[in-house]
Amino acid sequence: MARSSDDTSAGPSRSGERRRLEELVGRVAFVDHHCHGIVRGPLDRAGFESLLCEADAPGPWHGSLFDTQVGLAVRRLCSPLLDLAPHAPADDYLARRAELGSDEVARRLLRGAGISEFFVDTGFRPDGLTTPDELAARAGASAREIVRLESVAERVIADHRAGDFVATCRDGLAAAAATAIGFKSIAAYRVGLDLAPDRPATSEVAAAAARWAAGIERGAPIRLADETLIRFLIWTAVDLGLPIQFHTGFGDADADLGRCDPLLLAPLLRATAGLGVPIMLLHTYPFHRHAGALAQVFDHVFVDVGLAMQNVGSRAGQVLAELLELAPFGSVVFSSDGYGLPELFHVSATLFRRALSDFLAAGVADDAWSHLDAERIARLIAADNAHRAYGLDGEGAGRGSLA
Amino acid sequence: MARSSDDTSAGPSRSGERRRLEELVGRVAFVDHHCHGIVRGPLDRAGFESLLCEADAPGPWHGSLFDTQVGLAVRRLCSPLLDLAPHAPADDYLARRAELGSDEVARRLLRGAGISEFFVDTGFRPDGLTTPDELAARAGASAREIVRLESVAERVIADHRAGDFVATCRDGLAAAAATAIGFKSIAAYRVGLDLAPDRPATSEVAAAAARWAAGIERGAPIRLADETLIRFLIWTAVDLGLPIQFHTGFGDADADLGRCDPLLLAPLLRATAGLGVPIMLLHTYPFHRHAGALAQVFDHVFVDVGLAMQNVGSRAGQVLAELLELAPFGSVVFSSDGYGLPELFHVSATLFRRALSDFLAAGVADDAWSHLDAERIARLIAADNAHRAYGLDGEGAGRGSLA
Amino acid sequence: MARSSDDTSAGPSRSGERRRLEELVGRVAFVDHHCHGIVRGPLDRAGFESLLCEADAPGPWHGSLFDTQVGLAVRRLCSPLLDLAPHAPADDYLARRAELGSDEVARRLLRGAGISEFFVDTGFRPDGLTTPDELAARAGASAREIVRLESVAERVIADHRAGDFVATCRDGLAAAAATAIGFKSIAAYRVGLDLAPDRPATSEVAAAAARWAAGIERGAPIRLADETLIRFLIWTAVDLGLPIQFHTGFGDADADLGRCDPLLLAPLLRATAGLGVPIMLLHTYPFHRHAGALAQVFDHVFVDVGLAMQNVGSRAGQVLAELLELAPFGSVVFSSDGYGLPELFHVSATLFRRALSDFLAAGVADDAWSHLDAERIARLIAADNAHRAYGLDGEGAGRGSLA
Repeated sequence: MARSSDDTSAGPSRSGERRRLEELVGRVAFVDHHCHGIVRGPLDRAGFESLLCEADAPGPWHGSLFDTQVGLAVRRLCSPLLDLAPHAPADDYLARRAELGSDEVARRLLRGAGISEFFVDTGFRPDGLTTPDELAARAGASAREIVRLESVAERVIADHRAGDFVATCRDGLAAAAATAIGFKSIAAYRVGLDLAPDRPATSEVAAAAARWAAGIERGAPIRLADETLIRFLIWTAVDLGLPIQFHTGFGDADADLGRCDPLLLAPLLRATAGLGVPIMLLHTYPFHRHAGALAQVFDHVFVDVGLAMQNVGSRAGQVLAELLELAPFGSVVFSSDGYGLPELFHVSATLFRRALSDFLAAGVADDAWSHLDAERIARLIAADNAHRAYGLDGEGAGRGSLA
Repeated sequence: MARSSDDTSAGPSRSGERRRLEELVGRVAFVDHHCHGIVRGPLDRAGFESLLCEADAPGPWHGSLFDTQVGLAVRRLCSPLLDLAPHAPADDYLARRAELGSDEVARRLLRGAGISEFFVDTGFRPDGLTTPDELAARAGASAREIVRLESVAERVIADHRAGDFVATCRDGLAAAAATAIGFKSIAAYRVGLDLAPDRPATSEVAAAAARWAAGIERGAPIRLADETLIRFLIWTAVDLGLPIQFHTGFGDADADLGRCDPLLLAPLLRATAGLGVPIMLLHTYPFHRHAGALAQVFDHVFVDVGLAMQNVGSRAGQVLAELLELAPFGSVVFSSDGYGLPELFHVSATLFRRALSDFLAAGVADDAWSHLDAERIARLIAADNAHRAYGLDGEGAGRGSLA
Repeated sequence: MARSSDDTSAGPSRSGERRRLEELVGRVAFVDHHCHGIVRGPLDRAGFESLLCEADAPGPWHGSLFDTQVGLAVRRLCSPLLDLAPHAPADDYLARRAELGSDEVARRLLRGAGISEFFVDTGFRPDGLTTPDELAARAGASAREIVRLESVAERVIADHRAGDFVATCRDGLAAAAATAIGFKSIAAYRVGLDLAPDRPATSEVAAAAARWAAGIERGAPIRLADETLIRFLIWTAVDLGLPIQFHTGFGDADADLGRCDPLLLAPLLRATAGLGVPIMLLHTYPFHRHAGALAQVFDHVFVDVGLAMQNVGSRAGQVLAELLELAPFGSVVFSSDGYGLPELFHVSATLFRRALSDFLAAGVADDAWSHLDAERIARLIAADNAHRAYGLDGEGAGRGSLA
């Protein structure tokens, strides 16, 4: 175990084992349990770069954002699907992209990603993006919706101010639960993950809603950043029985990464254990080892390294292996966290497949586990864990719509 | 340096070097400076799985806890000692285990672990577990006791309530120090590691003990979770001169991992520097790099990655190498953190040996250090550092009983 | 991508690629954007060891500080430049060092480091150390000064007490900016990095200065540890337009590492974005992945793993690769953080070169990027990024003296 790297005699058989596992992992249809829509129209270089990673846009100091792991990965992995040589220069890539048109590019890149089901978060700037159905159509796959809790509350306060906020929110989330497959919270961005674990009293919620509405009356933007209200949304979602996704780990400059450590969620995880509702910790990097520890001790916690897969490029294998130190193999799921660019779906899925098959093949070559174990783990992580968490595994199928 | 992995011409010589270091590391008797007793009787599958990792028990979401790194490592490494093929299925393994009986299984697995001395923490649920002498007898090794500070205080409050708490605790710890080899604190579980660095006044301690006793009178369970009392215990232990172990890093769901970062101990480490009392930071993962930094700047701090070795399975080499980035080679010790299952001792020791010999052999192959350096470092980490820390290195032998 | 380690057929070509990149990285002159002076006179073994790593000195528990990664790296990498065999024993090394004399040793080691420009922090114990010009002369290179903000304030309070503190500090920093190439803050050591992001009012600054002066009058040492005053210095530096370096990550026992996480700077980074002043995050280990995330989302943030390169020895490649997961290639700079011993410059530079060429060669071998990409990235990290950040890239040359 842990020794293949220099056991040269194992080289050939390991290569054979790798090929077997690559083929298996290549055949398995992946569930992408967290992604977003893609931009509908054409993009110039600045627009493309602004969607490439978590930087808002290229600036005067760092040069082109193509000079990142994700930029290099796009040039390497996506160019061939656009009929270019690998590593095509950025301008050539974008010229060819414009020539083919964004629909054709999306079709090629999404179909190449090997994803059969997309669970699409529709809460962030949906206006310029494809709907779940549009995404699914381009990919030749199916799509289900993930409803963002904070967005529902923001629509309620916009439409009704504080009047009947509690009941209207509950109704809105219950209506969403009839068709959505899960909920998502961006508490990390708004108040941090250091959430009190208890369910707030209705009177507290009503008072907080009144304060929020009063602020909006005075001209504040409609942006939910109240810890009591966010806890109310989370507990309402718990009552509805759908899995709840949490943004954790790194994101854009709006979030203080220090408040996005999933360890801050421990009290809430303890409070929700045994309630039958899976908690899905998204992204988690650079706190993915913390997330793995949580997944080991809390049976209802699932984890991924979604956003990291696209961003860390050649390092994807190392990051996934770190997650798999403590996280039970039954707790790890795949997400692309694709947003805006179909390239990000393709890069995430391709790097994740390689990371997974490399991890599993190395274990077989090192005799840490058997090929049969590796196959079972591959199927768990590619799709079975997600199907179980979201109630799509036969017995639980349709669970999402019964909540 | 840092380049063996693809220098194919170095393959054969590196393999030879690895074998030489494996043989050396295999011959050296290891000191296991932190472990627990094992379960005396038979275990069914649920009982076995509940002891396999830090999860309380298998639950409805993640499936069998055999589908973890530690589960795979048990099936790989322990099966042959039970006359099974490597990677035996879990049910076959457990059937054979039942057939052999828990004593015979313990004998085989413990003797195969290559540990000559066990320092046994007797503070956690000792009733169902073997005593240090029983463990030693099964292993054909010797054992010494580590006394848990909080358990002593809990016995004192149970027997005496708050009356004479300070003096009775001091007497109890002094009596323990006459035979024990060290103390341990689980402050991390009870109040977190963010401990004030100063020694509390006797009046403060007496007042806190009175509050604790009053709570117990009102029906609270006997569970020490008062920061003042825990600091009193730590400083009393410092006065007695024995090494003090601290749980740090991950553990079960009772602990908030965010409060278990050893960096939180920095003020206490600064306050205890130069007092002649080693502080032993246990486990430390996923904060093992933090622990390495503490070990570098505080001469009296020793570190291990005990619990992690069993849990991270095929990743043990990477985790140990990360600890050895900053931690001086004179500061790193071995612990199995075995608890309940003899399998965990065997897996910890086997994975640690491999991780250590792989680390050292890679350095020799990369010409980062000489073979003689590697041998010296192996002896330090296997036993010499522990002997020095616990006063068993000749001059200091018996120091534990002189405190 | 991410797969070279066991693709044995790629061995030869990868070795060739590695040699090409090693030659390139070996030819490029490096900018060392953060270092200190070296000790002028001879050093005995205790004195040498006390400068070898962040431990104050060897102590009774850990043995010689040569038994560290940095100690082994010095014996491996520096011995040949002193005409000794690699891995010379520590006493032999020190005897030869004494024989050659500290000037000759410095000349050999510094010239072997391949650094063409040193940016020298003159704020820490400068009396016993070489000046920037003396360092440059020994190295056959050029040097520029980095002015430590807290040292300027300490000179002002020593010379003037609180009288006109605000204006005198501003004048002092403006005078420094006329010749220095950048500023540095050790807020991490003094108050931690959890700095409020706003510029303090002049009245607040004056009041804090008065409190500080009053303390000194009562006998307190002249040591700036006031958050308001440190923020005043930082904002004054921002006004002067020079890059500002921050100590982050591990250091000696004076600092609480938990307060040195660069994530704590996020509010200040947000407040200084777009002002045209680069913020240079030094060292960052073990929080280098956190630093990489900051560098991705803040265009004005540059990052290094300076101190870590010398300290982690054989692990330098792994640490640099972790930084390069999220940090854009245009944001990463080199520093040796050499202090006291010329050995530390040589070890840092040698390990960094290897880490960089190994990282880039592995990517080419794995087809993650092209050779041309690798060359461009090497030039960015070796010197171009530093030149851009410090205004030495042609258009901006001399920017430092125009502030």
